[in-house]
Amino acid sequence: MSTKGLAGIVAGKTAVGEVTQTSLRYRGYSIGDLAENTTFDEVAHLLIHGELPNRGQLAEFRRRVLAAMNLPDPVRQAMAAMPKQTPPMDVLRSVASLLGHYDPEAQDNGRDANLRKSERLIGQMAAATGYWAHLIHDVPLRKPNPEATHGANLLALIVGEPGSEAAGRFMDGTLILYAEHEFNASTFAARTIASTFADMHGAVAGAIAALKGPLHGGANEAAMRQFLDIGKPENVEKWFDEIDAHNKANPDHKKLIMGFGHRVYKHGDHRAGIMREWSLQLAKETGQGHWIDIADRLQKLMLERKNIHPNTDYPAAHLYYQMGIPIPMYTPIFVCSRVTGWCAHIMEQHEDNKIIRPTSEYAGPAERKVVPIEER
Amino acid sequence: MSTKGLAGIVAGKTAVGEVTQTSLRYRGYSIGDLAENTTFDEVAHLLIHGELPNRGQLAEFRRRVLAAMNLPDPVRQAMAAMPKQTPPMDVLRSVASLLGHYDPEAQDNGRDANLRKSERLIGQMAAATGYWAHLIHDVPLRKPNPEATHGANLLALIVGEPGSEAAGRFMDGTLILYAEHEFNASTFAARTIASTFADMHGAVAGAIAALKGPLHGGANEAAMRQFLDIGKPENVEKWFDEIDAHNKANPDHKKLIMGFGHRVYKHGDHRAGIMREWSLQLAKETGQGHWIDIADRLQKLMLERKNIHPNTDYPAAHLYYQMGIPIPMYTPIFVCSRVTGWCAHIMEQHEDNKIIRPTSEYAGPAERKVVPIEER
Repeated sequence: MSTKGLAGIVAGKTAVGEVTQTSLRYRGYSIGDLAENTTFDEVAHLLIHGELPNRGQLAEFRRRVLAAMNLPDPVRQAMAAMPKQTPPMDVLRSVASLLGHYDPEAQDNGRDANLRKSERLIGQMAAATGYWAHLIHDVPLRKPNPEATHGANLLALIVGEPGSEAAGRFMDGTLILYAEHEFNASTFAARTIASTFADMHGAVAGAIAALKGPLHGGANEAAMRQFLDIGKPENVEKWFDEIDAHNKANPDHKKLIMGFGHRVYKHGDHRAGIMREWSLQLAKETGQGHWIDIADRLQKLMLERKNIHPNTDYPAAHLYYQMGIPIPMYTPIFVCSRVTGWCAHIMEQHEDNKIIRPTSEYAGPAERKVVPIEER
Repeated sequence: MSTKGLAGIVAGKTAVGEVTQTSLRYRGYSIGDLAENTTFDEVAHLLIHGELPNRGQLAEFRRRVLAAMNLPDPVRQAMAAMPKQTPPMDVLRSVASLLGHYDPEAQDNGRDANLRKSERLIGQMAAATGYWAHLIHDVPLRKPNPEATHGANLLALIVGEPGSEAAGRFMDGTLILYAEHEFNASTFAARTIASTFADMHGAVAGAIAALKGPLHGGANEAAMRQFLDIGKPENVEKWFDEIDAHNKANPDHKKLIMGFGHRVYKHGDHRAGIMREWSLQLAKETGQGHWIDIADRLQKLMLERKNIHPNTDYPAAHLYYQMGIPIPMYTPIFVCSRVTGWCAHIMEQHEDNKIIRPTSEYAGPAERKVVPIEER
């Protein structure tokens, strides 16, 4: 039996996150509880160190993350030399790899070194995302505000000015919701890389590469392009019917409707409801509620006709759009959050390691003999 | 049931390679047959395009690969700016990621574009390995010889001069033997990344990151350091007994003897015997047969006392050492070969894709409520 995509296969144990059909918990805490009662900095500490911090621990943690937001000069120079049309996810992938060249502990896979590398990577990914926004979108280069949350700082770095209080709070909230999701494809790629006892920077670079894909993190960007393509709420049905007709006529080249479905959640993604609510609240400030109207109408159609629910990437799209974030920066924001989950999983993999090496079913040519090149 | 490391789990189908307890075949051809009757260029064509080439196809293929050995200037500049102590595998990981920024088809996941990218990456990985040898070991910068095999060219780039006829032939042979091995950890990491419909450069960067680990490609370097540590054939028993005593006294901190054992082959790795024979032949030129004596004595002890056989990395170590290749370049050579298998698997994954997303067994804290930070 071949289990394509490893659907339903238990690939190992984890204490980092727990996903069920109806819940998502990080180290025992439900994400609804975390989103309501903590900041991303606390959640990052929880994922990396195992427990929510007290005030003193949080202050120390934030001090270390903030210090890491000062990227090494050669990495900044390398970024400045990259072609301006490079997809930002490719930029972050290269940056994560290059950061390993300058990390004094990159080759040390011990727990203490990995904890410190994790904290640095949290700061560095946000700084690199902000620096790329500066290079490409010409937003003013800012220093992070030590009084603001990581999410509010990230938003300010990307758009070049502090957003509203609500925008900063919701950005921080999306970082909480995006932080961890057990053995999703990018985390599983990171664990597979780490399982050879390769280092954390390599595993994170591989995870970023995986997250880029439109079937994974890239879905939030694709969802927003789709809302823009639809344009107005009253266009939803016509747009949907056209795609449906195309797909019936071209069963081998179907167009996907992005932001729907999930390998695990078959009855809806808990995170999507929370983010939609934030997006509604933000629309009171921005006056851009029509994106949510479009999303809601499409969501209703998809449920009625395909019995499929939206995932987190769906409301993240219109929430980030309202914050004025350029679309190609949506998945990098996901990186800035999920790097916490990746690092927690890489450390867990290293601490009780067995190389991840499945097997395959051969489906190629039968045994044959080499024919000398003269006779081919 | 949790299947740690996915041992024995069939994660999908492949037509690229077939591994059994007693054989390894690439698209139906046994590796013994390929090693004896083809060059690596032909094998690379077989893996990437599906069939062994005729003379005309081979000439065209080689022309395209050779053209790609001229790295883009910005990548060469980025390499020159990297710290000299960067592990060469980290260099190649960054180079693979950076090459995506300059590849005109990096964002095109179609089969034709992926074929062209595969061919470019074969040339580029060899060129980057040679260029790093130039930067670090100060070997003269050479142009590849269009009349020589890819293996002979790679050897000349790394050591700065054409090796003997035998050395070039055996280097090319090791590239054949290292080229493909179905769902090993690096290939599986590449497929997991590609399964989100991420691009080939990201998947190859992730695969390089995985291959670096000492439980995977890094084992050939570790094996040679071990032979150097032993020093003389008559030291083998004493060295072995010391490790054995250490491991009995420290069951939680065992020292591994490198180059032995394999997830699949339990009765020996067919490739190891072929490489050992080449190493013996090369020793007639180099007069360095004592490394093979050391390896043979340790191999005999491991079989008698642990019932475990050496894998390919074991003879690759003393074969490369005799060629005068610096030890940190052994795993990059593995990259220059395995990039063919990786690219074949990435294309196969894209063509019949399902996201690779297993699940996990939760083993963390029970459900708990967030305590406000003031009360922690």
